[in-house]
Amino acid sequence: MSRTNKLKILNDPIYGFITIPNTLIFDIIEHPYFQRLRRISQMGLSNMVYPGAHHTRFHHAIGCMYLMQKAVAVLRSKDIVISDEEEQGLYLAILLHDLGHGPFSHALEHFFMDSMTHEDLSLFFMKALNNVFDGALDLAIRIFTNKYPRKFLYQLISSQLDMDRLDYLKRDSFYTGVVEGSINSDRLIAMLHVVDDELVIEQKGVYSIEKFLLSRRFMYWQVYFHKTGLLAEQLLLRVLQRARFLIQEGVPISASKNLYYFLEGSTFDKTDTKSFLDQFSDLDDYDVWAAIKEWQAHQDYVLASLSQMIIKRKLPKIELSDQVFSEDYKQKIIYKMKTLEGIDEKSLPYFFFEGSIQNRAYNTEFGPIKVLLKDGTVKEWLEVDTQFKSSALLEAQKKYFLCYPKDL
Amino acid sequence: MSRTNKLKILNDPIYGFITIPNTLIFDIIEHPYFQRLRRISQMGLSNMVYPGAHHTRFHHAIGCMYLMQKAVAVLRSKDIVISDEEEQGLYLAILLHDLGHGPFSHALEHFFMDSMTHEDLSLFFMKALNNVFDGALDLAIRIFTNKYPRKFLYQLISSQLDMDRLDYLKRDSFYTGVVEGSINSDRLIAMLHVVDDELVIEQKGVYSIEKFLLSRRFMYWQVYFHKTGLLAEQLLLRVLQRARFLIQEGVPISASKNLYYFLEGSTFDKTDTKSFLDQFSDLDDYDVWAAIKEWQAHQDYVLASLSQMIIKRKLPKIELSDQVFSEDYKQKIIYKMKTLEGIDEKSLPYFFFEGSIQNRAYNTEFGPIKVLLKDGTVKEWLEVDTQFKSSALLEAQKKYFLCYPKDL
Amino acid sequence: MSRTNKLKILNDPIYGFITIPNTLIFDIIEHPYFQRLRRISQMGLSNMVYPGAHHTRFHHAIGCMYLMQKAVAVLRSKDIVISDEEEQGLYLAILLHDLGHGPFSHALEHFFMDSMTHEDLSLFFMKALNNVFDGALDLAIRIFTNKYPRKFLYQLISSQLDMDRLDYLKRDSFYTGVVEGSINSDRLIAMLHVVDDELVIEQKGVYSIEKFLLSRRFMYWQVYFHKTGLLAEQLLLRVLQRARFLIQEGVPISASKNLYYFLEGSTFDKTDTKSFLDQFSDLDDYDVWAAIKEWQAHQDYVLASLSQMIIKRKLPKIELSDQVFSEDYKQKIIYKMKTLEGIDEKSLPYFFFEGSIQNRAYNTEFGPIKVLLKDGTVKEWLEVDTQFKSSALLEAQKKYFLCYPKDL
Amino acid sequence: MSRTNKLKILNDPIYGFITIPNTLIFDIIEHPYFQRLRRISQMGLSNMVYPGAHHTRFHHAIGCMYLMQKAVAVLRSKDIVISDEEEQGLYLAILLHDLGHGPFSHALEHFFMDSMTHEDLSLFFMKALNNVFDGALDLAIRIFTNKYPRKFLYQLISSQLDMDRLDYLKRDSFYTGVVEGSINSDRLIAMLHVVDDELVIEQKGVYSIEKFLLSRRFMYWQVYFHKTGLLAEQLLLRVLQRARFLIQEGVPISASKNLYYFLEGSTFDKTDTKSFLDQFSDLDDYDVWAAIKEWQAHQDYVLASLSQMIIKRKLPKIELSDQVFSEDYKQKIIYKMKTLEGIDEKSLPYFFFEGSIQNRAYNTEFGPIKVLLKDGTVKEWLEVDTQFKSSALLEAQKKYFLCYPKDL
Repeated sequence: MSRTNKLKILNDPIYGFITIPNTLIFDIIEHPYFQRLRRISQMGLSNMVYPGAHHTRFHHAIGCMYLMQKAVAVLRSKDIVISDEEEQGLYLAILLHDLGHGPFSHALEHFFMDSMTHEDLSLFFMKALNNVFDGALDLAIRIFTNKYPRKFLYQLISSQLDMDRLDYLKRDSFYTGVVEGSINSDRLIAMLHVVDDELVIEQKGVYSIEKFLLSRRFMYWQVYFHKTGLLAEQLLLRVLQRARFLIQEGVPISASKNLYYFLEGSTFDKTDTKSFLDQFSDLDDYDVWAAIKEWQAHQDYVLASLSQMIIKRKLPKIELSDQVFSEDYKQKIIYKMKTLEGIDEKSLPYFFFEGSIQNRAYNTEFGPIKVLLKDGTVKEWLEVDTQFKSSALLEAQKKYFLCYPKDL
Repeated sequence: MSRTNKLKILNDPIYGFITIPNTLIFDIIEHPYFQRLRRISQMGLSNMVYPGAHHTRFHHAIGCMYLMQKAVAVLRSKDIVISDEEEQGLYLAILLHDLGHGPFSHALEHFFMDSMTHEDLSLFFMKALNNVFDGALDLAIRIFTNKYPRKFLYQLISSQLDMDRLDYLKRDSFYTGVVEGSINSDRLIAMLHVVDDELVIEQKGVYSIEKFLLSRRFMYWQVYFHKTGLLAEQLLLRVLQRARFLIQEGVPISASKNLYYFLEGSTFDKTDTKSFLDQFSDLDDYDVWAAIKEWQAHQDYVLASLSQMIIKRKLPKIELSDQVFSEDYKQKIIYKMKTLEGIDEKSLPYFFFEGSIQNRAYNTEFGPIKVLLKDGTVKEWLEVDTQFKSSALLEAQKKYFLCYPKDL
Repeated sequence: MSRTNKLKILNDPIYGFITIPNTLIFDIIEHPYFQRLRRISQMGLSNMVYPGAHHTRFHHAIGCMYLMQKAVAVLRSKDIVISDEEEQGLYLAILLHDLGHGPFSHALEHFFMDSMTHEDLSLFFMKALNNVFDGALDLAIRIFTNKYPRKFLYQLISSQLDMDRLDYLKRDSFYTGVVEGSINSDRLIAMLHVVDDELVIEQKGVYSIEKFLLSRRFMYWQVYFHKTGLLAEQLLLRVLQRARFLIQEGVPISASKNLYYFLEGSTFDKTDTKSFLDQFSDLDDYDVWAAIKEWQAHQDYVLASLSQMIIKRKLPKIELSDQVFSEDYKQKIIYKMKTLEGIDEKSLPYFFFEGSIQNRAYNTEFGPIKVLLKDGTVKEWLEVDTQFKSSALLEAQKKYFLCYPKDL
Repeated sequence: MSRTNKLKILNDPIYGFITIPNTLIFDIIEHPYFQRLRRISQMGLSNMVYPGAHHTRFHHAIGCMYLMQKAVAVLRSKDIVISDEEEQGLYLAILLHDLGHGPFSHALEHFFMDSMTHEDLSLFFMKALNNVFDGALDLAIRIFTNKYPRKFLYQLISSQLDMDRLDYLKRDSFYTGVVEGSINSDRLIAMLHVVDDELVIEQKGVYSIEKFLLSRRFMYWQVYFHKTGLLAEQLLLRVLQRARFLIQEGVPISASKNLYYFLEGSTFDKTDTKSFLDQFSDLDDYDVWAAIKEWQAHQDYVLASLSQMIIKRKLPKIELSDQVFSEDYKQKIIYKMKTLEGIDEKSLPYFFFEGSIQNRAYNTEFGPIKVLLKDGTVKEWLEVDTQFKSSALLEAQKKYFLCYPKDL
């Protein structure tokens, strides 16, 4: 294929056109490891609440690269030197940062990957691709693992203002139709600067930072933690846990080969990452959907009824509260549930369960946000314009949920 | 559930909020026949070209109902009497008009449904739901089948300016990011009127009609017939045809029960529609995706390699032309193909095939568009303001395509 | 003119189409008192910073009426009875609520109207129109002055969640391009309800309220108080004060008749409101612009140079600070200024001045925002979901500004 | 001022952020010749029909520069060499291309400039600025006057697909809310290429060209020629003609100095362009508005009543027709008019007048649109994909209008 044919542009309803900058990136996008992201939904089961939210990790990754292109152009216009190799490293690192996501993204992350995070797995994928492409990802990997001396490159990939967050907030807000969550990625990027190899925001962007953090918090509580989506994902997790349990018990279960491999509990073998990655890269939302559809007719009551709840959208009840649910309250519900068909001591945890959700708007675990003042000094955002700062942005907010059958 | 809880609103990135008008409609939306539309992609495989286009028939159907609510309000404001029963009938008819769509919507319509159209099947579904809901859909069915005397109600469901077209053009344009295809549904609806029980457009809307027809033509040629999407759908069809062929030959094929049922070639039995509908309503995109994923490793070369092409997005070549491809040209390609591994006389039609696509912008098969002139008379659109009328809108445009392996 | 001709629709880039609901409202919109709003810019001189912000009070007033139409529809769908007369009253009251705005809206409010607010003057205009239209505005006036027993009608016109705020935030955000200020008016209106004749927001809207208040605060500090716009408006005020001073000194000044009338300091005469209103309704931005343009060549140094600053956009310096500027700091500047041509003790206050700006996000002066909990009780917003509440929303934020010549 | 302070960004509701690329361009934007465009409305009196259309030539010019920045980036990505000087020349030429527009843009072009077009005058302004900025505009002027050898640079400034058209269609569509007129400037620019120093569009953009031409035609007939806006502008012209006539008759007329200068009929003196330009650059919409407002009370019946029609929006009747109005029809109207107060043989032409409007969608006077085919050859657009080409795009469409008092 000629060079010109690979200089493709992609339509994006949000950004207009996205240009694929060169043939290496084109070839990596064409690789099955990356193409698989077309079959991983960005927002898990949120589309059960927000019917527009069917977008994929594929589109998100491409969108991140687009924002990175903008960020590079802005920084260069401010005389920050970024070499062509560093630029390429940034594009590759952000493009591939989510390669390790499994079916339904975060919803099932711990089920399929044990103690590994999707970032860990992304790194293994990047290394595997680096072999395929003869070391072309060396610098990208160094940036991604924060081993490259110029720290701001890493911060563009992973920090409180990284291109990942800028894209997913804008994109998820767009596809859900929850306009309150929309952020001004253009403005935030226009305010980026670099001082002492660290990413900073120019002072005139201080309000925009607060606005960004608040939009993010809004999206968490209104969308990502929406109780119906949360509930559906909890059910999904329990369906798969039940399937795994049944396999361990020797009960026959139909599932695609890849899915079965992971249901059996096959784990990551550091001596043979290649075969694990190949297996994992064949796993996507469709395997899970197809299995759940079949399981609706399975003889196991628990497996069948949980599967039906998801497919037919006959969801149980979920309660949210600022406080932990009292033992007394829970025992009353359990007492009533015992009269229901199919529920006994063993099956109870599949139909009655609780948990918590938590989010911190400004989270210094990811490093502080720094502001470049007009006088040339740099301060942490919290110390600038303090009268506007909301303490609520700093504290973790937490809610508890409790799920049990309707019509008790 | 109380009445209030069912007065839900749904987020739509296009229209903002959509209100579900009453409990009957809420209950029908909750029915598994309708919930299934969540798993039927609106645009087949167009998302292989336009990565944002993952929206579903579910969202489209709800969107159509929203536009119908607007249309009813506009017409009533112009003193057109529409009774509450007629209003309800309109909402139900438009909501359910696509219930008969199978996996990937139009792409596989003829494979799964033989000579039946999706509209035929929608009607069977509506009748089945009418039984469930004790005759509440009687009037909707009369409108849908054009047996209700007030013809404009049918025209709101099915005509050149029906709510279906208004929604799908706007929605598909939105999710693909192809802004040129966007139409002003607001304006078109605002211009609706009724004269002698027929739907008309007020004169000041004449330019908008032309704009609408041109946007529709644009979407056909630029999006729905985009050569990559077209190609992917042609491959999808051939994968399934091959699977059906192998089953007839007695070769074992893995597939979900529902899909297998249809691959075996089970056809519609008018004496037992219920069981057919139940089977069909279990069939969706996920069955097909899961099957193709498995088939990638099938021993049959044709089945495996076509499946891989789709999943790994390694598509063959497609040529488009205004003219029929010459026999000579085709023979030269076939001659070269004969040297390729796995291709012989019998497998050739799976790797070398042709066809045509065709569209007419203004199509009186669906009835003319009528315009209410300022002097109160009604004329066919073609006769109004004729100097602007493009003959190209009236003629069918046709293109031919030819597909064969790359790198010959 | 026939009834049909008056059922006009207006294009709005934000809402699409706005329908004028009946002939009375059409006639009032056509009245010169209302048409004048076409010549009053909505955002004063903000377009000197945000070049898109040239929209007018006319468009805002129409937009408010559109949102009111939506609010009435939402409330009625929740079985709140609103009579046709009340509906009409709401439309008229919101349409005319800004009729009393003078040139450049808030920027010059106190210069032209002394101690009267624009709301006071709006009321006089409404009464005058009520005479013209034979008492048709009786109910509108009762609602506007909060003398109608059903309090929620007044709250739709004037409260922390009134249709005025919903429109101006959305509209100003749209035309400035400051997307962070955009609010989801659709969602907020969808959440409206009425309990005990008071406006409330349903519980699921609590996050939206916070988002709305924060967007409003953002617009104040980023847009309405943008230092360049603020500066330009301060200059504008001083130009006019100088002109008034010169007239009092007997210096000839060119100005349109209406403007001259107000420069002379003519004040509102309660015994002859009609002639005052007629005079005031002839006054708009154009009078002021035209005068300033002429004054650029006036012999008075102060008048001429301030006028030139605005027209040629050669603005002086403005500093913003969280603290009051120290006497010491100010004296140093004044000391340097004394060396500049044209500046002496008397002219100094026109070239060196200070002031403050202040805003409170959640302001109970306009009444609390009340929330309808899921259990049917009503609580003040501040008491609901308290962990999210930002103290910064409750306190007034204040900044100080100081203006003086550049290049000292 | 430091370099950094001049690297300003401007908010644009359409494009997001626009970056001013360097200090020369910043200084030119700050020049009073350019700042004056803030007071010239882009669309004349169209805001009398589309109340959102208050945007200015200032914003349009900046928007054109933004699109030019995109075009330069696209072409360079396709290995078209554009030197830094050429880039600068393009930005300056497009930024200043409308500097010669007078009040209300096209509406009064011929009244104020006699036989000169606004482009002629723009050139004089550019030359004057070139003096101020020591020859920095040399290359811009050569490009603007098509005297630079590389023709595609001129074509980016002036051709059927120039950045001017791309911006004004998008901008006017945006501010009027007429979404059907919106064009995909992103896509069109992405398709630009250069062959033999001529601008071409890549083949995959052929449908977009047609879509663009049709949107433009739509905007002409639906918006620019909207009968109410057209009528208001015709009245405006006649008000000014009457004022000029009265001055010639010796009747005292109030007007700002600049406006009076042009009403007296002062014409362009090639030996003293500087003083003409200074005078012209002081003239803007506000002079005209202020004058008309005063003239409402003038003793001359014609001047006063035409002025009132505009300010109070009490417009006469306008008829549009595909054919010339018959003499017979016109005589009947004139006969009735003779009975009206204030109308006699001499004043008649101010109250009864006719004219025509005309537009050609594809107009080769501005050069053909050329298409780069996939095989590398270049063809005129008309010869590509001919079955879609509408003859209506090639022919000039023409309409006739006739204006006379209402209520005859």
